[in-house]
Amino acid sequence: MGRVTSRRRVSVRNGESAHERADTLVVEEPLEIRVNGSAITVTMRTPGSDIELAQGFLLTEGLITHRDDVVSARYCRGENADGLNDYNVLDVTLAAGVTLPELGVARNFYSTSSCGVCGKASLEAVRLITKHSPGDDPATVSARTLRALPGRLRSAQKVFAATGGLHAAALFGVDGSMLAVREDVGRHNAVDKVIGWALESARVPLTGSLLLVSGRASFELTQKAVMAGIPIMAAVSAPSSLAVDLAAQSGLTLVAFLRDESMNVYCRADRVVS
Amino acid sequence: MGRVTSRRRVSVRNGESAHERADTLVVEEPLEIRVNGSAITVTMRTPGSDIELAQGFLLTEGLITHRDDVVSARYCRGENADGLNDYNVLDVTLAAGVTLPELGVARNFYSTSSCGVCGKASLEAVRLITKHSPGDDPATVSARTLRALPGRLRSAQKVFAATGGLHAAALFGVDGSMLAVREDVGRHNAVDKVIGWALESARVPLTGSLLLVSGRASFELTQKAVMAGIPIMAAVSAPSSLAVDLAAQSGLTLVAFLRDESMNVYCRADRVVS
Repeated sequence: MGRVTSRRRVSVRNGESAHERADTLVVEEPLEIRVNGSAITVTMRTPGSDIELAQGFLLTEGLITHRDDVVSARYCRGENADGLNDYNVLDVTLAAGVTLPELGVARNFYSTSSCGVCGKASLEAVRLITKHSPGDDPATVSARTLRALPGRLRSAQKVFAATGGLHAAALFGVDGSMLAVREDVGRHNAVDKVIGWALESARVPLTGSLLLVSGRASFELTQKAVMAGIPIMAAVSAPSSLAVDLAAQSGLTLVAFLRDESMNVYCRADRVVS
Repeated sequence: MGRVTSRRRVSVRNGESAHERADTLVVEEPLEIRVNGSAITVTMRTPGSDIELAQGFLLTEGLITHRDDVVSARYCRGENADGLNDYNVLDVTLAAGVTLPELGVARNFYSTSSCGVCGKASLEAVRLITKHSPGDDPATVSARTLRALPGRLRSAQKVFAATGGLHAAALFGVDGSMLAVREDVGRHNAVDKVIGWALESARVPLTGSLLLVSGRASFELTQKAVMAGIPIMAAVSAPSSLAVDLAAQSGLTLVAFLRDESMNVYCRADRVVS
């Protein structure tokens, strides 16, 4: 589709001098995800890997659990002003027998809990919905392997190098082998894309694997790791309180501030070995 | 409320050595925003300034236009497992005569357009809904004032200094005076909080002011600036294609990569003076 970057004019100021030049920007466009014909969400994303994005989203929100739950995923016919397909509406058809929970304006996850709206309820909702137990995974990873990952992620971020405007997520084997890397203007989309790739490759649950994200570890990203059965998650920046609580509940190893020679391990530090 | 940071144990690894210590994390908790008793969204946020957050959200989504549109904003009675109020549900009562558009699962903005789902439709929706014209604002800002702002924002980020885990947004006068600064685990929440502050202070439309964000300039953040009538927005990192297109359509001055001696001005560079 080749719609990942776009050119615009820019005025560059250095000190008091200014000049004009062309600049390369990351493309941001809405994607509407439909299930069996009904819109369930709109996300602002970087075009590309849209089917992975939709499948990763459906899996990590608990709407599907297996790749066979999806029969097809197709772009709807275009209806933009020029009569062209803009490839921004994707309709996913589920297999017979896969029922979709009722979705409110609140995300599926928060509305499943019976005990109000709070971090504890958010944790409980994940516990009730997830099919996987990262806590049982015997995987370990060496500190040396972990330390090398951010540099390898950066090397693989081709669009970031051109635009400076993307988040990235990557899946690695615990031996350090890179399985998949995706970039997106939205950090949650980058994670959905690599998990959607894994679903299509019949690799879910992602036992023995590691998820690396280029930014911070929020509750929502940590939830996605747990829902995909990933035992180890690493972030370049800080975790939130609720991300750490979810990791603790799920037996997920959560590494954050992964930089140069140092890292913080918030949960299940026994999986990080010398 | 004092629930902005929280302590957890962490294992810190430096090279091959490891030790345990306490760590300070930023708190992340869900907030459900209700309007006249009906839930309209749940956002993962850092507690504090919740009423500003709700009002900023309602304004920048086009659901209200004036502070008098809100009669009251109250935390609902607690219903958590311990019978205590967890202050995570806020009910906003609108003035008689303020009607709420019907909200689907898609965000209000994307569903108002008749021409499909695409960037152009997203731009058109903002154009139809906004009450303000940043393009008409005669404000200018000196390059010297702009260059000083990221350092001043960082100095004001008290929780970031402790946790490394927050985004920030600040409103400045174009003379460089700081009006408000807010931090949050969610970048959109930080922006909603400063705009909600401005609404409460009867400063909307925010003519003659500047919005600074600690990260990137996405479509959604740029939309919030336009909806609040802000003429100049600056970001420390990259803009997306759609953010630049919205700025161009709205007459918003969009500055990005604002760092040390240099900056990129994508639209209405005439407002940045020597």
